[in-house]
Amino acid sequence: MREVYLDNSATTRVCDTALSETMEVMRENYGNPSSGHLKGVQAENTLDLCRKTVAKFINCDSKEIYFTSGGTQSNNIAILGSAAARRHLGNKIITTSIEHSSVLRAMEKLEKQGFKVVYLKPDKYGAISLSKLASEIDKSTILISLMFVNNEIGSFIDISKIKKIIQIKNSPAILHTDAVQAFGKVPVNVKAQGIDMLSMSAHKIHGPKGVGALYVSKGLRIEPILFGGGQESGLIPGTEPMPAIAGFRGAVIELMKNKNSQTRIGEINKYCRRLLAKNNSVRINSPQNAISNILNISVKRIKSETMMNFLSSHGIYVSNGSACSKGKRSHVLTAIGLPDEWIDSSIRISFSRFNTKEDIDYFIKYLNEGINKLIKF
Amino acid sequence: MREVYLDNSATTRVCDTALSETMEVMRENYGNPSSGHLKGVQAENTLDLCRKTVAKFINCDSKEIYFTSGGTQSNNIAILGSAAARRHLGNKIITTSIEHSSVLRAMEKLEKQGFKVVYLKPDKYGAISLSKLASEIDKSTILISLMFVNNEIGSFIDISKIKKIIQIKNSPAILHTDAVQAFGKVPVNVKAQGIDMLSMSAHKIHGPKGVGALYVSKGLRIEPILFGGGQESGLIPGTEPMPAIAGFRGAVIELMKNKNSQTRIGEINKYCRRLLAKNNSVRINSPQNAISNILNISVKRIKSETMMNFLSSHGIYVSNGSACSKGKRSHVLTAIGLPDEWIDSSIRISFSRFNTKEDIDYFIKYLNEGINKLIKF
Repeated sequence: MREVYLDNSATTRVCDTALSETMEVMRENYGNPSSGHLKGVQAENTLDLCRKTVAKFINCDSKEIYFTSGGTQSNNIAILGSAAARRHLGNKIITTSIEHSSVLRAMEKLEKQGFKVVYLKPDKYGAISLSKLASEIDKSTILISLMFVNNEIGSFIDISKIKKIIQIKNSPAILHTDAVQAFGKVPVNVKAQGIDMLSMSAHKIHGPKGVGALYVSKGLRIEPILFGGGQESGLIPGTEPMPAIAGFRGAVIELMKNKNSQTRIGEINKYCRRLLAKNNSVRINSPQNAISNILNISVKRIKSETMMNFLSSHGIYVSNGSACSKGKRSHVLTAIGLPDEWIDSSIRISFSRFNTKEDIDYFIKYLNEGINKLIKF
Repeated sequence: MREVYLDNSATTRVCDTALSETMEVMRENYGNPSSGHLKGVQAENTLDLCRKTVAKFINCDSKEIYFTSGGTQSNNIAILGSAAARRHLGNKIITTSIEHSSVLRAMEKLEKQGFKVVYLKPDKYGAISLSKLASEIDKSTILISLMFVNNEIGSFIDISKIKKIIQIKNSPAILHTDAVQAFGKVPVNVKAQGIDMLSMSAHKIHGPKGVGALYVSKGLRIEPILFGGGQESGLIPGTEPMPAIAGFRGAVIELMKNKNSQTRIGEINKYCRRLLAKNNSVRINSPQNAISNILNISVKRIKSETMMNFLSSHGIYVSNGSACSKGKRSHVLTAIGLPDEWIDSSIRISFSRFNTKEDIDYFIKYLNEGINKLIKF
């Protein structure tokens, strides 16, 4: 059976360069970067190389990159660690109501510790108003954490405008962004965009699961939330996940080689939207200006799970909501004011550079077949 | 140049079964276990299979196994998470002064939170006295955390005797053991040995770096220290490090197949001790009854690093102290009362089932050459 994988925002197939880099580190270059002998030094050199590759990709110094176990750990350390370190400067934190659970649950933890957290609400296109944000920033605001690209509908924020607002407001706030869905898909340049902390994940860009990174602007203090050896400057203790880190580097190298990926994905998205528009039962939930990788739709009167399972039985894989919040009604679609019936019938299609127009034809064929068949029941 | 890797307590080469399992999960079975479609379900099934394999190996239910990013995270969650959940029961925690840094640093964090932590001191053989332990356990003791096998000298504790002492003392204490150096090397049977929580790591048993596990006895409550999605029952949020988890399973499968590994390693250790005994400049620091995998020695008047580098230049890799506490004088060797000059000249040799007697001959040849050459300077 043909396989059409359209759930690339949940996770991706590991690309060839990532595979070979991972293998090399498991089979030959398997030393512990903390070991002083040659085998350890070789591993340490590989680690440095990986750090440089990721740093170059977002335009920062390699000393500003910390490898983590993934996006969740990056977000947790950025938020909990910086709030703890900046407590003496103020008590207010600003975020949005459409963040990933690893941001929202961390914020709830901070609320229990006495911080005041403001959750900005998006408009019906998933956009966060910069003027509303500006009106909330004050001299007691120590942290602003905003998702770069939303994982469910693909809406994004113009992150580069925020640093200036903070400066105008004369606020001690620093800017963190969860860039897990943005990294490798929209241009990320932490220096030009005025970002203080940025979370990344490898497995959304054809790297292995089990590794991410956190960019922390030089000089910014973060209190560790995990304790042990001195790895990653003491911020992320424990032997580094070298196979996954090397794979992360491989994935970034392939990204840099495939510079036209996003154009390709853009064409596929447009093609898919055009075909979907022909079907009256389909509503497109992603805004027009969403990133091309994510296309959220609802199919009239067919529950998300029912459609997902039907498509899955034909080898087509789409998401019935974010893979991370299984079983609950989407907080993102709720926040943008989608009626419950549309939320309950929503599916997320997410593309990668490995998808083809033939994949889309195949998907549309079975989507239409599903609409005809399932609506009867 | 011949390579003789004798630093297997720092990390190990990934074995073939672990390699192939890791590859499969990156190349084909790359779904997100949280995704509802077939590709996600396949990944979830793999995750279950991995959990069952690890559970079987230590004799527990698969629901009692939580995959972590490694030994450090396992220790942190066990200690910080259970102390937070048991605070209402008492304020006292017992551990030893020769634990791994991921235990000691977590304990320091708890001390800052107001817990009283007692650090038991070992005798000159690295042994912790059970009667001293018993005298410390009282009704306010909520947690006992003891290393199963010490990572620097290979001494171990008879863990199976402790549960009974806790019961006799009528204490609410639970028993955690950092079994990172024990797992796969000495028999671990959490039910028979009365262990409530046990930390494991894959990369010490020829699995990949970036994954570990924590056994938590059913019904025991632990407060999470990381926040996000519901993965691993909410205790370790974030997409599971599937490549490393699958590799972990592969490593355990190979362990179970190679039932005579420890006998082999025992013979190699004895062979090495016999050859070392011929050299008057060498002092053996590991106790006679240490596990065969670890052999700590000191070489008269030659600094650890100097000897390590000399051996390294001949392709022989040993440790100049635990890879996790780079640059500091060993707290373990200090605790067993070794004079500073011996500590500063100590090296740790650690064997694996891939080592041969020829490896030992090669090592001894260059160790002796090193002693002759380096002592002159």
